[in-house]
This record gives sequence, structure tokens and C-alpha cells, in this order.
Amino acid sequence: MELHFDQELTEVKDLLLRMSSLAEQSVVNVLKALVQRDDALAHSVDENDKQLDRLQMDIDERCIQLIALRQPKARDLRFLVMTMKIASDLERIGDQSVNIAHRCLELNKEPLLKPLIDIPRMGDTARSMVHEGLDAFVYNKPDIARALVKRDDEVDMMNRQLHRELTSFMIEDPHTITRALNLMSVAHNLERIGDHATNIAEEVVYLYEGRDIRHQPI
Amino acid sequence: MELHFDQELTEVKDLLLRMSSLAEQSVVNVLKALVQRDDALAHSVDENDKQLDRLQMDIDERCIQLIALRQPKARDLRFLVMTMKIASDLERIGDQSVNIAHRCLELNKEPLLKPLIDIPRMGDTARSMVHEGLDAFVYNKPDIARALVKRDDEVDMMNRQLHRELTSFMIEDPHTITRALNLMSVAHNLERIGDHATNIAEEVVYLYEGRDIRHQPI
Repeated sequence: MELHFDQELTEVKDLLLRMSSLAEQSVVNVLKALVQRDDALAHSVDENDKQLDRLQMDIDERCIQLIALRQPKARDLRFLVMTMKIASDLERIGDQSVNIAHRCLELNKEPLLKPLIDIPRMGDTARSMVHEGLDAFVYNKPDIARALVKRDDEVDMMNRQLHRELTSFMIEDPHTITRALNLMSVAHNLERIGDHATNIAEEVVYLYEGRDIRHQPI
Repeated sequence: MELHFDQELTEVKDLLLRMSSLAEQSVVNVLKALVQRDDALAHSVDENDKQLDRLQMDIDERCIQLIALRQPKARDLRFLVMTMKIASDLERIGDQSVNIAHRCLELNKEPLLKPLIDIPRMGDTARSMVHEGLDAFVYNKPDIARALVKRDDEVDMMNRQLHRELTSFMIEDPHTITRALNLMSVAHNLERIGDHATNIAEEVVYLYEGRDIRHQPI
């Protein structure tokens, strides 16, 4: 019975890792689609998103069933509840990647407004935060997770800077307005991906330490 | 023992209703702050947000403890898990109201760009969706919740229309750009509040019918 339960927990964990790999791949692909102006790659994010939706529903169902049947306590219970929360963050990262893909398709219809340097950098920071959050989860490293929570400020700062810069473009030349709005939306969605990575980090700390560090001064 | 558990469930439900009333009040206040250009009212949303944060943490802690101690099954378990999910949506609505309040403070520094008609209407639709979602939860009405999921399109459409209209303003007169960007951000946050109301509706259907209707064609 116990062995079987361990096996069931491992299956749930594997599903979550599948989600994290798909979510991370979505961010990588949509950034590449932006830089290489590749419509086909932008469209590929939709398929990942559908898989993420299905996996999240599967994870929720299994977690609730396992809680009902196995009546877990302490860390096993926290594992199942936090897995549902992390799955919800990963599903949202899939949605945000789709939002970026739509902006990318619009941007590809016009010439580049400016060389894309800040957005890929910002995107890579957000992606690496998601990756590290899942590493903290897999390798039982709440310290890595705590460090991540602080890094969210980096992404927020990059977003604000881009917003200022793009606003100047718009004011100087109204022809840039549509493109600047699309780029702002891309940056905003990347900033949200950073927020979800932060949520994941907080969930990992709660899982391993039983401490809720949300809304705390850091 | 059973009586005591019922009492504990009622306490959790009361905390969630307190959250929903605070979240709805935040949306009402921030819309009023926008229309009446009232900085003090905009600031008041911060206090609600802090209360929402604390209540969400309290609800999560109680739900996890009750699951561990009472080992609930079927509907009681779904109630506790969905309560955590609904609390997370309400907490986010608090955050989005704070985002709107910040835009409102920026907007109040300049003359009105145009009479505010569409945004209050959009905001009231989003607010009423949150209210109905909680009504469906309190009065065990999955039908109301199902109807709500369809209404999300209304808010999305209003957001797209506002986006187009504000883009035209910006192109015609670059002096309007900062204000138009702030109004776009307000509309975007209201659209997200509608999304959270939709999540709540889906969670209510799952609570009462045990069916996961996320990501389904409607």
C-alpha cells in the first residue's frame, strides 16, 4: 500500500515535470519566434498550451483523488496541494506564451521597430526563473527558491524600463505606435511569467519548510 | 466531532465571503476613484489588498489543516480545495484593483482624455461577474456559474474595443499617449478581473457537480 502510494506520488511529480518542460519550451520558442520573425514557430506554442491545459486537469484530478483515498498528512499533503498550485502557475505561463505568440504574429507583419535585445534578455531571465523554481522543487532546495523570490525585481525593472523607452518611441513617431504597443504587451507578459516563477518559488518553500512566505518583506 | 467539523467549514466559508466582499468593494472603489478623480479613494484600495493577502493565507492554512485532521472526502474535500482556488482568484482581483488604483493616480495628474463611460461599464460587468460567481458558490447554483463562463466574452470584447479606440486617439494626437496607455492598462486589468470571475465560476461548477469544465468549448 505505502509503496503504491509512493508510486502514485512519483507519477504526479512526473506529470508536473512534463508541464514545466512544456512551459519552458513555450517561452523559448516564442522568444525565438520573435527574434527570427518565424510565424510557424509562434503558432507551435498553441499546441503546447493545449497539452498544458490537459496536464493541469489531469494533475488536479489525481491530486484530489489521492488526498481522498490516501488521506496524506504533513509533507505528502503539502506536496499534493502545492503540486496543484504549481500546475496552475505553469498553465498560466502557457497562456502568457500564447499571448506573446499573438503579439509576435502582429509584429511580423511590419518591419522591426528596433533590434530586439532587451526583450530576449528579459524573456531569458523569466525562463531561467521558471527553470530554477522547478529545480528547487525537484532537488528539495528551498534556498534556491528563496533566492528566486528576490530576482523577480530584475524582471519588473526591465519591464518598466522598456515601457518608458517604448513610450518615447511612440511620442516621437506615431508610426511606431502599433508596434510599440505590441512590444509592451510582450514585455508585460514576460513580467507576468516572472511573477508565476516567484509564486512557484514560494510554493516550494512552503512544501519543504511548511512556512508561508507570501506577502512578506524580503 | 461532526458538528465541530461543520462549524470549521462554516468558518472557512465566512472567511471566503469576507474576501469576496473586500474584493468587490475594491473594484467598486477604484471605479469610483477613476470617475470622481479621487486620489484618497484610490489609495484606500491598498488597505483592502493587505487584508485580502492575510485572509488568503489564513484560508490556505485552515484548509490544509482541515484536510490533514478531518480527512474529508467527496464534496467536503472539493469544498476545501475549491475554497483555496477561489481565494487565490479573489486575492488576484485585489492585486488588479491596486494596479488600476496606480493608473488612476497617474490619470488624475492630467485633464480627462475623454468622458469615462466604457470603462465604468466594463468595470461594473466584471464586478457583477465576481458577485454572481460568489452567489453561485453560496446558494449552490452551478447553473448561474455556467452562465457566467459565457459572459466573459462581453468583457473581452469591451477591452478590445477600448484598445482600438485608444490606439486611434494616440495616433491622432501624441499628447494623449500617456493617458491612453494608462486607460489601456485599466481596461486590461478589468478584463483580467473578468477572467478570475470565470475561474471562480468554473470552480463552483466543479464543487457542486464534480465536473471540470475548464478548457471546454461552451
